[in-house]
Amino acid sequence: MKNKTKVIRPGRDLTRFTVSLEDDLLRKFEKRMQKKKYANRSQAIRGLIRADLVQEEWEGGKEVAGAVALVYDHRRRELLTHLTGLQHDFQKLVLSSQHIHLDHDNCLEIIAVRGKAEEIKAFAQLLRACKGVKYGNLTMASTGARI
Amino acid sequence: MKNKTKVIRPGRDLTRFTVSLEDDLLRKFEKRMQKKKYANRSQAIRGLIRADLVQEEWEGGKEVAGAVALVYDHRRRELLTHLTGLQHDFQKLVLSSQHIHLDHDNCLEIIAVRGKAEEIKAFAQLLRACKGVKYGNLTMASTGARI
Amino acid sequence: MKNKTKVIRPGRDLTRFTVSLEDDLLRKFEKRMQKKKYANRSQAIRGLIRADLVQEEWEGGKEVAGAVALVYDHRRRELLTHLTGLQHDFQKLVLSSQHIHLDHDNCLEIIAVRGKAEEIKAFAQLLRACKGVKYGNLTMASTGARI
Amino acid sequence: MKNKTKVIRPGRDLTRFTVSLEDDLLRKFEKRMQKKKYANRSQAIRGLIRADLVQEEWEGGKEVAGAVALVYDHRRRELLTHLTGLQHDFQKLVLSSQHIHLDHDNCLEIIAVRGKAEEIKAFAQLLRACKGVKYGNLTMASTGARI
Repeated sequence: MKNKTKVIRPGRDLTRFTVSLEDDLLRKFEKRMQKKKYANRSQAIRGLIRADLVQEEWEGGKEVAGAVALVYDHRRRELLTHLTGLQHDFQKLVLSSQHIHLDHDNCLEIIAVRGKAEEIKAFAQLLRACKGVKYGNLTMASTGARI
Repeated sequence: MKNKTKVIRPGRDLTRFTVSLEDDLLRKFEKRMQKKKYANRSQAIRGLIRADLVQEEWEGGKEVAGAVALVYDHRRRELLTHLTGLQHDFQKLVLSSQHIHLDHDNCLEIIAVRGKAEEIKAFAQLLRACKGVKYGNLTMASTGARI
Repeated sequence: MKNKTKVIRPGRDLTRFTVSLEDDLLRKFEKRMQKKKYANRSQAIRGLIRADLVQEEWEGGKEVAGAVALVYDHRRRELLTHLTGLQHDFQKLVLSSQHIHLDHDNCLEIIAVRGKAEEIKAFAQLLRACKGVKYGNLTMASTGARI
Repeated sequence: MKNKTKVIRPGRDLTRFTVSLEDDLLRKFEKRMQKKKYANRSQAIRGLIRADLVQEEWEGGKEVAGAVALVYDHRRRELLTHLTGLQHDFQKLVLSSQHIHLDHDNCLEIIAVRGKAEEIKAFAQLLRACKGVKYGNLTMASTGARI
């Protein structure tokens, strides 16, 4: 590929290249970028590229990281024990968890996970199906290694 | 903003600017770009920017275009009449529709729509709730005017 | 499974069963159901179940149907010819298409498709990557056969 | 509404009602339900209803809870200080955070949040735009109070 120039920086090599955009599109992109608080065009474009790569990691069965958020009623008999047991059964996937007391009855538990996308999805579904869990959702994130 | 050069072309003005990416990230981006069949980096970046702008159009209550896909059993009494009636009631939003015979019983109807995001969503929900409609889904697209 | 009663109807057999919901949740569900214009609880629940099954069809590599919406500038040299050519190359997947003139320059083309989820996704990406295509999006729908 | 029977249980009132489903659909639903590990039909249906209600909470500007997952390179100068500063500036929204060391350079930070959907989205975007943040994603969850 041509149009690339090397910028040497300690610890992190950057390559510069030129992009051409229709004037109109560039104006809209810059407005959007300011609204999203990006410092400059390169950074906004990096953000779009990385979001797209994380999408690919999850579709392609790569090793990923993420978070499972659960909302549940802690008064349900045995639920706490059961959820903790499951996290230990799947300790290969579980990194850590945080627990928030939302109100007298409801808890929010957020479990940080890492592993194959398919295994993480199956684990999230298992947690979601526990009696007393009201809601469960899985966020896609990344191990950072390939983005 | 600096780093911009004008490229004059009849009917479509392009601006060129430089982007800097970490080497590693650039390599991944190029691999992804080839897999997605984009001809060059500028085109792939335009694709990401425009997808992001369409997202914004739908969130920001702008005029948008899209398609409502419905799957239904045409043998349901009055359903065809009802669906057609609704499309006429909302002709301000409806551009055209196509009808596909999936098998002996099931139809796929795709209705092209244009209007405010909120109105389109409400219309899609109305169609989805009709007795006999098995499934309905709304695709976000754009009028093309602001991307 | 117990708690099921048969209701005989010509051409479409229904089974009835009981569901138990927390009072609070039932009230919220009924409010939501009315807002979404469903005629009754059974119909609203069918809607949720079917949307979940369509999700599974797309994840599980089943045969599915859907729609690819493209926004493009028809003045781009050769684009119309190219898009039509692609649709013929993939006629195994393409059912029909509709074309809407959005304004002087922009078109919305909606292509109804049917096939394996993976093949449809790859085809949609191919269309999206064509020079002059501003935006492309794929809606998930169903052949109706398994929902 | 008819067809409802009261089941009295200490601390949690349940209402029973009947649902009718096409035989075919019921069979598919039960297969899906077993695959997703739900104990019974009522529980699987509650899961679908609640996921739909959480969707509504986020669309309707209600108070919600969630998690922002960030992937970043902790070696970026001032990034840790900056991210912590932002969390303090928005302490109205921030409940707690957990930090995971993914590898030598990359961190995963998961911030539990609670507040209006719009405010949370803006806060997540602010974090995502910080120089050195590679990826950010927001999971929708709920305070549990309305589901």
